[in-house]
Amino acid sequence: MMRSSVIASSLIFASAIGVTPLAAPTANVEHSPIYGVTIPVGYRNWQFVAPAHEGGSLNELRVIVGNDKAMKAYRTDTLPFPDGSILVKLAWRHVPLALKSDPGPPQAFLAGHATSVQIMVKDSKKYASTGGWGFGKFIDGKATDEAQHQTCFSCHEANVKEHDIVFTHYAP
Amino acid sequence: MMRSSVIASSLIFASAIGVTPLAAPTANVEHSPIYGVTIPVGYRNWQFVAPAHEGGSLNELRVIVGNDKAMKAYRTDTLPFPDGSILVKLAWRHVPLALKSDPGPPQAFLAGHATSVQIMVKDSKKYASTGGWGFGKFIDGKATDEAQHQTCFSCHEANVKEHDIVFTHYAP
Repeated sequence: MMRSSVIASSLIFASAIGVTPLAAPTANVEHSPIYGVTIPVGYRNWQFVAPAHEGGSLNELRVIVGNDKAMKAYRTDTLPFPDGSILVKLAWRHVPLALKSDPGPPQAFLAGHATSVQIMVKDSKKYASTGGWGFGKFIDGKATDEAQHQTCFSCHEANVKEHDIVFTHYAP
Repeated sequence: MMRSSVIASSLIFASAIGVTPLAAPTANVEHSPIYGVTIPVGYRNWQFVAPAHEGGSLNELRVIVGNDKAMKAYRTDTLPFPDGSILVKLAWRHVPLALKSDPGPPQAFLAGHATSVQIMVKDSKKYASTGGWGFGKFIDGKATDEAQHQTCFSCHEANVKEHDIVFTHYAP
C-alpha cells in the first residue's frame, strides 16, 4: 500500500503528459490508482491486435487495439515492447444474436453494451517495478479501485512473462 | 445459375478495379464467384467496427473492419451505406487460454489460426439485384465456391433488411 501510494502520487502528472499527449493535463483527468494511467486520446481509431472472449461471470467480447508503436512491435516480432507502446482492451457484453431465418438456439454472439476499457502503457523506467508496464481499468470513464489494480501485474507476470507480460498475440 | 453467371462475367474486371484500387488488375487476382469481389489491399490496417463470436461447428472469433467510407457511415448513423463502402470480417478459430495461475477449466478464449476472410462491397448499381452489396468469402486467399456465395444475400436480407442487410453494428 505504501509503495503504491508513493508511485501513484509521483506519476500523476508525468502520466497525464506522457500517455495523452494531445490532451492538456487537467486536474479532472481520470487516472488509474497505483499507476496513474489515463485513457489515451483517439484509441477507438487505432488498429486492432486481436479479439478475445471472456466466459464465466464476465461474459464479454473484447478487442485489443494498439498505438502505432505497439502495432509496429507486434508486426516486427519485437520484444520487449518499446517505451511508449500502449495497448487498450475494449470490452462489451457477449450477447446472443437471434436469427429471424433460424428460430433455433442462437449460435452467433455479438457485442452488447460496453463494460470496461483496460489499458497497458509501457515505460520501462516509470514502471520498472511492474515489468515496465502501467495498468488502468476504467468503467464508464471512471477508474476502478486500487484493490483491483493490485491484481493486474501479478496475474500478467504469472502467466505471460515470456511475452513481456502481454497476453494478447497478433491475430493475422 | 444463369443470372449468377451473367453477373459474374460482367463484373470481373469492374470489380478488380473498383475494389482494389491500389492493385493492378491481373488475371490471377482471386475473385469471388457470382460477385467478382476481390480481397481489398491493406484491410488488416483498417479500423474495426465490432467483434463477434460464432459458436457451433464454426467455433470462431471474428473482427469486422471497415474502410474509411464504411467507418464514416457507421459513425454518422448513415444508412444505406454509400457506394464504395467495404466491410471485411476476419475470422479465427476460438481457442481456450490455459492460465498457469489457475488450473481450472479455461474461461478465456483467444484467436487461434485464421479460418476465413469475408467481404461485402457496396455498389448500388453493380449489385442492384442483391441489395447493393457484393459478397466474397476467401479461405487462405482462395475464393470459396459458387454454392456458398449463393447463400450470402438471402440470409442477410432475411435477417437484417432494416440495417442495409449488414449484421454488424458499431461497438463503441
